[in-house]
Amino acid sequence: MHFGFGMEIEAVAVDIDGTLTDKRRSLNCKAVEALRKLKIPVVLATGNISCFARTAAKLIGVSDIVICENGGVVRFEYDGEDIILGNKEKCYRALKALEKKFDIVLLDDSYRKAEICLRRTFRKEDAEEILENYGVKIIDSGFAYHIIDENVSKGKALRFIAERIGVDVKSFVAIGDSENDIELFEVAGIGVAVANAHLKLKEVADVVTSKPDGEGVVEALEFLGLI
Amino acid sequence: MHFGFGMEIEAVAVDIDGTLTDKRRSLNCKAVEALRKLKIPVVLATGNISCFARTAAKLIGVSDIVICENGGVVRFEYDGEDIILGNKEKCYRALKALEKKFDIVLLDDSYRKAEICLRRTFRKEDAEEILENYGVKIIDSGFAYHIIDENVSKGKALRFIAERIGVDVKSFVAIGDSENDIELFEVAGIGVAVANAHLKLKEVADVVTSKPDGEGVVEALEFLGLI
Repeated sequence: MHFGFGMEIEAVAVDIDGTLTDKRRSLNCKAVEALRKLKIPVVLATGNISCFARTAAKLIGVSDIVICENGGVVRFEYDGEDIILGNKEKCYRALKALEKKFDIVLLDDSYRKAEICLRRTFRKEDAEEILENYGVKIIDSGFAYHIIDENVSKGKALRFIAERIGVDVKSFVAIGDSENDIELFEVAGIGVAVANAHLKLKEVADVVTSKPDGEGVVEALEFLGLI
Repeated sequence: MHFGFGMEIEAVAVDIDGTLTDKRRSLNCKAVEALRKLKIPVVLATGNISCFARTAAKLIGVSDIVICENGGVVRFEYDGEDIILGNKEKCYRALKALEKKFDIVLLDDSYRKAEICLRRTFRKEDAEEILENYGVKIIDSGFAYHIIDENVSKGKALRFIAERIGVDVKSFVAIGDSENDIELFEVAGIGVAVANAHLKLKEVADVVTSKPDGEGVVEALEFLGLI
């Protein structure tokens, strides 16, 4: 379809936690049913592990193409392979530096292939100072901290996917709520922040919905004429 | 609540694929919303891996207690540990015997902790003959074959969970669609088969719904006065 932004919308990339789910991390059923109505591919983009993302894609009933670990891993098929875009070794070196200073609790580490996920047991700013020269960044998803290869982002992963499936990355609409969605908005044609989104994401968004999380997703899809 | 079967219903155990989902494996949103209304614990019971089950529990918004790998693994918390009830080594020995006869395609093997999952590339009956003396059973979930320790079942796992959480296993209602739900029905107080269920499951069910999968779950919860 053709949209006022002067572009054809050919695909949707949507974050999961805080965007399709509420604070308890339960799916918003209205958003699920709205996504199922779309005639264009829907790519889920999450900071969570590939096993979470592939399950979510299957249960929600959208394409099996997923961005996981904040862009460190992508996957094209439910029974396919993880494609690893981030360097976890760099993250481990950074972790060692953090362990000297803070009590660290790792989350899902055996499942993570490109990044390290930690409980939020310290101030992010304090960690950033320590991590300056490790080639990594620290992301606060609102649910956990992620130590991630600085060369990795949801945006770069979306570009990788767009090339692979032969869709112009600028014809994607991206919908999200967190700081880790900023790079997604930068590469997509349109960025939609839901009402509960982080202020920094709202600043770079083309559209900010009036409703939060899943209700905001439905609002956005209606506003864009996609449903 | 008190029910005509002369028992108090204190918890629900429900299968995922083919019960909460349709043939495409997408969640039935009406069933999801019905389960969220329940004031009693809901335990998901699946042949799938723990990572699938914990994600499903989180996204559906029920308790984090899950039965995975057909009872070979149970889990009590989202960020907790897998408790392994089945012996995967026995399954590997059985697999070696099958490999001599059939082309084998393993599914999710690196994630499976208690059983082996295979594509349905041969007749189940032919495999059963070969596997007679290996201490394993072969289950057809309708989506894949599972080679599983013969001492493991969804029913035994439910008994384990019921003891751990201090609920009489007979006060559980179990809802399912497949042969691998038979043992679940045997230990639970009431067994409900959805309309699309396997004939063998319907034979041991106390109630068979008139509607299939997710619609059948809603029908059952209404019939039992739980919503």
